[in-house]
Amino acid sequence: METVLRSATRDVVIGPGQPFCVIGERINPTGRRIFQEQLRAGDLSRIEIDVAQQIEGGAMVLDVNMGAPLADEAELMVAAVKLIQSRTDLPLCLDSSIVEVLEAGLASYQGKALVNSVTAEDERLDAILPLVARYGAAVIGLPNDEEEIPADPRRRLELAAKIIDTATGKYHIPISDILIDPLAMPIGADTEVVLRTLETLDLLRSEYGVNTTLGASNVSFGMPDRTAIVAAFLPMASAAGLTSAIMDARSPDLVRAVRACDLLLNRDEWGGRWIAAHRAAQARQTGA
Amino acid sequence: METVLRSATRDVVIGPGQPFCVIGERINPTGRRIFQEQLRAGDLSRIEIDVAQQIEGGAMVLDVNMGAPLADEAELMVAAVKLIQSRTDLPLCLDSSIVEVLEAGLASYQGKALVNSVTAEDERLDAILPLVARYGAAVIGLPNDEEEIPADPRRRLELAAKIIDTATGKYHIPISDILIDPLAMPIGADTEVVLRTLETLDLLRSEYGVNTTLGASNVSFGMPDRTAIVAAFLPMASAAGLTSAIMDARSPDLVRAVRACDLLLNRDEWGGRWIAAHRAAQARQTGA
Repeated sequence: METVLRSATRDVVIGPGQPFCVIGERINPTGRRIFQEQLRAGDLSRIEIDVAQQIEGGAMVLDVNMGAPLADEAELMVAAVKLIQSRTDLPLCLDSSIVEVLEAGLASYQGKALVNSVTAEDERLDAILPLVARYGAAVIGLPNDEEEIPADPRRRLELAAKIIDTATGKYHIPISDILIDPLAMPIGADTEVVLRTLETLDLLRSEYGVNTTLGASNVSFGMPDRTAIVAAFLPMASAAGLTSAIMDARSPDLVRAVRACDLLLNRDEWGGRWIAAHRAAQARQTGA
Repeated sequence: METVLRSATRDVVIGPGQPFCVIGERINPTGRRIFQEQLRAGDLSRIEIDVAQQIEGGAMVLDVNMGAPLADEAELMVAAVKLIQSRTDLPLCLDSSIVEVLEAGLASYQGKALVNSVTAEDERLDAILPLVARYGAAVIGLPNDEEEIPADPRRRLELAAKIIDTATGKYHIPISDILIDPLAMPIGADTEVVLRTLETLDLLRSEYGVNTTLGASNVSFGMPDRTAIVAAFLPMASAAGLTSAIMDARSPDLVRAVRACDLLLNRDEWGGRWIAAHRAAQARQTGA
């Protein structure tokens, strides 16, 4: 199954036979005090740097989260979408927990965005999926609801089924426009969480064939040497069927890891892209 | 299932609940011209450096291959085994294609060695397995025979079954003393090879539960940025059930990758070893 995201002029395809889709996580004020202050003051200049660094690193889609405390998130989302679309033709992933922010972002976006995200809660499904349908967007579904973030992969699959059934049946969103998040929780809290994520990915692949995404950094939260943990997690998840991740696109170690996954999992014919990336890196070194 | 290897004074346990077993590949003259010349001249001093570097890097078992052209391999194997066992208490993996070399190595070895390797060919099985049984060693089985290195994982499983049946039935070797190699071929020759290796691992785990090993460097043969390829391959293989690998134990990137696998796959309770390794690295940096 293939999910197509679009900017005004460019398509990006997510799917099991496609290069692993790197969704840059950086345009997000969470944990960035200075960036938060800039956003509150209406200063979006930092976004331009984040866009450039993530493109340089290998991002294929950019997540945009404007959730700075005490700022007008909807207004910032609109301004950020317009600014970013003037600077790059990469498709965007509009990231907010507030329905009005998602709507404002979708209304100002040119192309087919990815909406981040909807849970399996009835109220959220009926607030967000109509927007996804109206704007012809794609959406990330999180298989948790009011009651729980289920530990059992089978229960996650049930909640994913609820999201898929509601989106396709009630709102006529094509299943190919739904990415399910298999829920990657911090390994530091419970060392069984990754086993559950991998089993959920395997079930999603075998039972639905839907595309998938997750926040890769979350796995390493609270642990030392976070990049090394994520760099080992991504190949496991990719081999289990993960087709995209919201991740640090500025990290050469992480981007190299997912490009190695493409090579190893037969998504890079003759290793052409791997070898080209090596030559480009060599040329940069020689030029520097 | 658990495979126990031993030196005179130390046990190393290989198994799905155990830390991934790093078998250092370095004591091998293949592709090392100067080392070959030293071995032909009877100079084993380089081995001491290789032993020390691999222990420093995190090796848990050391592979010993003395296949230098024009040298007396059996004599070198005996000398190397004695030298290495005087320098470290890590168990050894005796690596040769020549039966007499394996026998000489086993006769001079103190403990329970790993024999590398036997194929599914009748002649090899009947030459090598009696030695494994007589010396109470463990053995690596390669699921290929006179006719083929099979591409089909199901055929690899059949040949693994032949090795397991012959070893256990005819030579009374416990199945826990057999490691099957799922055959990791170079990705540069055919980009489907890793998919076959992963499927073979999955089949071996579900149908036999045997321990497994492979030569990890082989996957990246002929490609640029080899370490990055192997560092992505090992987590995939580990998640698919691989319990050990013959690999470059001197590479921090590779050893960190398998230690991250332990953390992510619930083989490192509370992340205790991961955190301890981080603190040790910090202490070394502070001390330096």
